[in-house]
Amino acid sequence: MRDFSNDHRWLSLNTATVRRQGDLLAIVEACARRGIRAIDPWRDQVAAVGLDRAVRAVKDAGLDLSGYCRGGMFTADGAHRSEARDDNRRAVDEAAALGASCIVLVVGGLPQYSRPGSADSKDIAAARHQVHDGIAEMLDYAKLAKLPLAIEPLHPAYAADRACVNTTKHALDICDALDPGRTGAIGVALDVYHIWWDPELMGQIARAGQDRLLAFHVCDWLVPTKDILNDRGMMGDGVIDIRSVRAAVEAQGFAGYSEIEIFSNDWWGRPLDEVLRTCIERHRTVV
Amino acid sequence: MRDFSNDHRWLSLNTATVRRQGDLLAIVEACARRGIRAIDPWRDQVAAVGLDRAVRAVKDAGLDLSGYCRGGMFTADGAHRSEARDDNRRAVDEAAALGASCIVLVVGGLPQYSRPGSADSKDIAAARHQVHDGIAEMLDYAKLAKLPLAIEPLHPAYAADRACVNTTKHALDICDALDPGRTGAIGVALDVYHIWWDPELMGQIARAGQDRLLAFHVCDWLVPTKDILNDRGMMGDGVIDIRSVRAAVEAQGFAGYSEIEIFSNDWWGRPLDEVLRTCIERHRTVV
Repeated sequence: MRDFSNDHRWLSLNTATVRRQGDLLAIVEACARRGIRAIDPWRDQVAAVGLDRAVRAVKDAGLDLSGYCRGGMFTADGAHRSEARDDNRRAVDEAAALGASCIVLVVGGLPQYSRPGSADSKDIAAARHQVHDGIAEMLDYAKLAKLPLAIEPLHPAYAADRACVNTTKHALDICDALDPGRTGAIGVALDVYHIWWDPELMGQIARAGQDRLLAFHVCDWLVPTKDILNDRGMMGDGVIDIRSVRAAVEAQGFAGYSEIEIFSNDWWGRPLDEVLRTCIERHRTVV
Repeated sequence: MRDFSNDHRWLSLNTATVRRQGDLLAIVEACARRGIRAIDPWRDQVAAVGLDRAVRAVKDAGLDLSGYCRGGMFTADGAHRSEARDDNRRAVDEAAALGASCIVLVVGGLPQYSRPGSADSKDIAAARHQVHDGIAEMLDYAKLAKLPLAIEPLHPAYAADRACVNTTKHALDICDALDPGRTGAIGVALDVYHIWWDPELMGQIARAGQDRLLAFHVCDWLVPTKDILNDRGMMGDGVIDIRSVRAAVEAQGFAGYSEIEIFSNDWWGRPLDEVLRTCIERHRTVV
């Protein structure tokens, strides 16, 4: 297991962590100033400054991209399915322009939440079939751009409205079905927030192996959690044994960035510099 | 699958659903008046009126008890372990006095939340070992009273603070380990709120079979969920395909009560009669 205590060379910042403190250009500048070597930007943040300016800022700052957030939201009714497909192809094009290492997939829950305007459904099994088919279609396009797809299993609390792939096992089942040869074209993005509770987690990380482990995200689970989406914790402030999960992915050979992604009304309300300083400190002491 | 549309003879009311509207005696009286034939009372509600009065009220009203809530909270540090054991034995004694069909087990999360005062821990694997051992010990005592234990897997959102058994599979694994002969002494209480998201649900219900299916609870998952504990929905107001889950348990031979358990700041704020009237209507039309 890598020693993070002496520096933060393996810290990546998911830019949603500070999305209310500044635009992507300001975030890139702050990261460069603090010696943060990688980010994972969100599409809306890229769109807000324009793709070309985002590409230039990333290159000028010499930043790596540990991922691009996000593709997915595959579930839709018939009228919204081509919208989903075209949207995901644009995500691939943007990720390629930015030089991202993978596209993180948040696969979508029930259609009415995934693609607003879609007809109401309570059929989660049907949604899961759509996700399978949607990823298969996107994978063909992403392979041409040589952009790996990283399925992110989301906490079961998001099954209805954000992602109906809720366990590492389910995500890996999809990978195995769509890429039995393990070509590197598809894998998983594991965020401790979503998976820490899973009694099968350690076995599934071993099953994933190095070639399926495309991204590793950290934050913490707070007790109590006051908001189901936007009350995630800074590493060390909650109950997750983060280091044991990192040890497990690194035991498989994962050697990429440890990406900090915190959706938090609390941390969004603090100055950018305070957030980055705390991220760096916790990366060294807790992650 | 049973037809619920003509009456509510298979409706049971978990008394937490109206715990702010009146004491247990008032709830029993209201249920009797509305032709509700069964309840599942909570220990604090029984204690508030006294066990003897609770027993008399239940018998006078001719009510069945579809369960008794709750045993569990097995996770504790060394200083609090005997407290947990003794507390659970008292739960068995009370359930026997009340004539409950089973004791619902909420097994506990990390020790500091399960048994306040216990030392802080982030070791969820250790907590799960404690749960296994705690149930084993309680089972010996409960068998003497001929009281089945029903492990309730709770939604993964409660893994830290309420229960570290979060899937039907995990609950059944414990049942199989402690009762390989399937004697009827232990099984599961399945609440659609906790399990609806699970991609392995249908297979695990089939694995459970009639003898492990000790209780079936209903409510609904709202989008958005505003409070992770106390914003559960009235059946039909959320996204759960309740009928498909009931069909699956009944296909295994489950023929017991469909118990309504709703923790909801919204419904706790409404008159007792309105809540019961709505429960009966939704039981007939949605469950």
